[in-house]
Amino acid sequence: MGSVTVYGPPISTAVSRVLACLLEKDVDFKLVNVDMAKGQHKSPDYLKLQPFGQVPAFQDEHATLFESRAICRYICDKYANRGNQSLFGRNGGGPAERAQVEQWLEAESQSFNPPSSALVFQLAFAPRMGLPQDPAAIELNQAKLAKVLDVYERRLGESRFLAGDEFALADLAHLPNAHYICAAGKDDMFASRKNVARWWEEISTRPSWKKVVDMFSAPPA
Amino acid sequence: MGSVTVYGPPISTAVSRVLACLLEKDVDFKLVNVDMAKGQHKSPDYLKLQPFGQVPAFQDEHATLFESRAICRYICDKYANRGNQSLFGRNGGGPAERAQVEQWLEAESQSFNPPSSALVFQLAFAPRMGLPQDPAAIELNQAKLAKVLDVYERRLGESRFLAGDEFALADLAHLPNAHYICAAGKDDMFASRKNVARWWEEISTRPSWKKVVDMFSAPPA
Repeated sequence: MGSVTVYGPPISTAVSRVLACLLEKDVDFKLVNVDMAKGQHKSPDYLKLQPFGQVPAFQDEHATLFESRAICRYICDKYANRGNQSLFGRNGGGPAERAQVEQWLEAESQSFNPPSSALVFQLAFAPRMGLPQDPAAIELNQAKLAKVLDVYERRLGESRFLAGDEFALADLAHLPNAHYICAAGKDDMFASRKNVARWWEEISTRPSWKKVVDMFSAPPA
Repeated sequence: MGSVTVYGPPISTAVSRVLACLLEKDVDFKLVNVDMAKGQHKSPDYLKLQPFGQVPAFQDEHATLFESRAICRYICDKYANRGNQSLFGRNGGGPAERAQVEQWLEAESQSFNPPSSALVFQLAFAPRMGLPQDPAAIELNQAKLAKVLDVYERRLGESRFLAGDEFALADLAHLPNAHYICAAGKDDMFASRKNVARWWEEISTRPSWKKVVDMFSAPPA
């Protein structure tokens, strides 16, 4: 297996999504820090890897990629026979089973991510950056997220994970934003919904995710 | 081949994205209207198909799905040997080639879609719904979209389409929002950028997309 490199700080939600996937798939990787405070993500060299000037970027011997969910899909396809082999449904499950994962991965991307990203910024990153919080934005996005979690609550009353009976990429993609929201004291949004609470407890205590959380406090490479 | 049903009005951007994909893949389908003005998308029966109460929903003999981009991926996987066979890169191109499509499909979803959807609502749907336009929202989202199109302009100076030399799902996904923005008189955003203009001319004149646009003005089934 060739070398895999991830560019970006692990505390970035999008970077940590990719790290969680690599750990689930048991794929070794090198992490290269991108010092965003110093504007390294807007440097000409970095823009060759990631034209939008965002993190993460990803490289292996065959591909240079950006966008965390696209990178996760590639890792699952490329390393299909390593580590966790049911992140896209069971191996050999076919298009219909993969599509169940894809639809909930898109639900994460289109419905869960916008309000939860706004909350992560307000609750976790604004204070670290010395920026004032916007109470109206917090309230608005909490209300939007609550509606999404109500749909999840019904879905998770029917199946153990979002896409079925196996932990999949659709669940994994939720880990970063949900982690920061819970760590910022809003864990009641998850804990107050019985099925969501069970699901969150199960996915957030996976060894792969615990390793990623440990990396949040490690000094940058 | 079993029957394929799409639920939702063709004028919905997300519905039309799926229709464009089905037409590219030469897959026959039945279109079932969902009268959103009458709230049919929030009815208990429809919520069984689409738990968020949005359009489209999709059904064939193997799957019931929601989220337009997930449905498009499924159509490409399931009907791999029909119609246009390079929507995920060349057949047999492998994970790295599919990943090029995925990263630009995610760029559409994460970078292009938020400001362009806001513009579609302000420029096209608010007037139809008798709602006032918000000039500040239009200005803000035009500025955000311009930055995204600047990245596309550089990319499309290197390759004919976003993900490479073939029209792919990554290009197709842009058609609905870009169509409404151009139709609302903001076509200069595309026409003023040389490579984006060439790309937009090429993708928007494909027979598949012209058929979808014709469906916008057809009476509902």
